[in-house]
Parts: sequence; C-alpha cells; structure tokens
Amino acid sequence: MGKKRGNIHLYTGEGEGKTITAFGLALRALGHGHKVIIIQFMKGRRDIGEYKVKRRLSPEYEIHQFGRKEFIDLKNPEPLDFELAKKGLEFAKKALKKKPDLLILDEINLAAAFKLIKLEEVLELLNNVPENTTVVLTGRRAPKELIERADLVTEMKEIKHPMKKGVLARRGIEY
Amino acid sequence: MGKKRGNIHLYTGEGEGKTITAFGLALRALGHGHKVIIIQFMKGRRDIGEYKVKRRLSPEYEIHQFGRKEFIDLKNPEPLDFELAKKGLEFAKKALKKKPDLLILDEINLAAAFKLIKLEEVLELLNNVPENTTVVLTGRRAPKELIERADLVTEMKEIKHPMKKGVLARRGIEY
Repeated sequence: MGKKRGNIHLYTGEGEGKTITAFGLALRALGHGHKVIIIQFMKGRRDIGEYKVKRRLSPEYEIHQFGRKEFIDLKNPEPLDFELAKKGLEFAKKALKKKPDLLILDEINLAAAFKLIKLEEVLELLNNVPENTTVVLTGRRAPKELIERADLVTEMKEIKHPMKKGVLARRGIEY
Repeated sequence: MGKKRGNIHLYTGEGEGKTITAFGLALRALGHGHKVIIIQFMKGRRDIGEYKVKRRLSPEYEIHQFGRKEFIDLKNPEPLDFELAKKGLEFAKKALKKKPDLLILDEINLAAAFKLIKLEEVLELLNNVPENTTVVLTGRRAPKELIERADLVTEMKEIKHPMKKGVLARRGIEY
C-alpha cells in the first residue's frame, strides 16, 4: 500500500546532509500547512536549530528526542541507550496513528545498524504507514533491508568537508 | 577570508535532495533566530512549500524567485531566461550587503553550467561573502571552478527514485 505511493524515503551515506534534508522536507510540508512529526534517535541536545524552531512552528511541527545529551558510544552502548531507542520506536508507532503528512525518523538507520532497535520492528512499522503519510529514514549505515524496503533512496557522498580541515562545528550550520 | 571559515557549501549531483538540503539549513538557522535569504534561479512557481512557508517565517526568512513559472528549456533558453538569471545575480550581490547569516542560491550551479549567468561573476560574488555569512549553492552539473571554490561539497547520488517508476510529483514532498 505504502509501496505504491512511493512514500518511504531513505537518506544515507557518509556525506553531510542526511538529517538536514529531512528538515528541508519538513519546511516544505509546513508551507502547505501539512502536519510534521519528527522523532530523533540517539539525540538529546535541545540547543540545536531544528529543535528550537518548534517554538515558531507548533503545533504543525512536533519534534521529540530519544537520546542522551552526550554522544553515544556506538561500539559500547549503555542500557539507557537501548531503552531510549526502544521508547523512540514505540513513540513512532503511536505517531503514525495520528496520520501525520510527514514522519521523520532521524538517525533510525544507524540505530538499527547498531541493533539499538530491532530491524524487524522497523520493517513492521513501515508496513503500517497510512496511505497519505510519507516516512523519512535518515542515518549512516542503513541496513540493506531498509534500502530494499524504501521507495526513494539517496546516498550523500562527501566530496569535501571543512571540519576535516579543522573548522569547528558552527551554530546554525552543523547544529 | 570566507575560505578560512568554511562558509561556502555546494550541493550537486543527479540525486534528489540538493535544494531541500538548503531549506533544511534554513530551518536550522531560523531555530537560532538567524536571518536567511533565499534566491531561486530558473524557478517561478509560488505554490511550492518553500515559498508558501514565508508567510509563517517572515521577516527572518526571505525568498525571491528569478525564473518563469514554466520549466526552462535549458538547451534553448529565451532572452527572458538570461534576463531573469542576471537579475537574480544582481539581487544576490545586494543581499550579501545585508549580511544575512545564510544566503541560499538555489539552482545557481545549473544556471552557471548553462551560461545563463557568467561563472566569473559567481566567483566574484563568492569573494565578497561577509565573514559571518554562509552561502549555499545548489544545482546539478556544478562547474568544476565552483566545486574547487567551495569549502563543503556534497554530491547527492540517486540510488532509487519513485518518480522513475511513474509516481507523480507529490505536493509537500517534491514541491
């Protein structure tokens, strides 16, 4: 059903622009008065532009974080990391019931790749996408099952990045 | 000067997500209360989400179009197309004087590739970017001189696209 409308997008790759592309789709959707729900996995910082902008865009723009403020150690995740990711996925299931026009599952690819959440549960969620909802999955290392399942897949390929040259993360650009 | 801060971003490639990434950066910047000016080359449709959203985000979010409503025939552009693109570039020069935090030059890569605007003029504009302004250049077929000049370059590589399977452009997603 979702399959026919092409409504599962996936952005992956090592290049910059995966998360930010999803937020661009959010902005576009808001322009049409659509409802957008964003769920961020493994992220918990609220001083980021995409979180702070909700003050201006509520109630059509909802953003919910399921991660710690600190960076997660993906090679050695803590029980809390699993717990938060699991809560994020449960929240996503409930969010779909509200039939938003756009549901963004930010960093879910990486969360699935590192088994913070079960791939089968993500696939099951994708089988329950309402007809008029577009779901966007972002994150590096997208498992091949998600790539197969998605209708639109773009790989962000890094050609040049200034942070590799020692430029610090800039407010309003990298976060 | 701009070079040191890494403040020229370029998004190119045949994959989806170039323009929309720029709008994601706009959303992020707005969250921090930053000022964003967007100039669209070769685009003139105002029923697109990224145009309509300005009602909600003015005055920090400005968007100006320098194109016709119809698709441009890049192989055979009309005098009006050249005129509009030239006006867009002039407008961009003036916009920089306002020192916005973010200036998006949407589709400028393609406009330069098809010589609607002079590459030298674009390079000159990039030499006059204020210290605290980030400029984003989007569009397919970015001339190599622009790639060399940019600090951050991402290529969007298409892996799968539903419109190739006959799915029509969807409001709030493709426009």
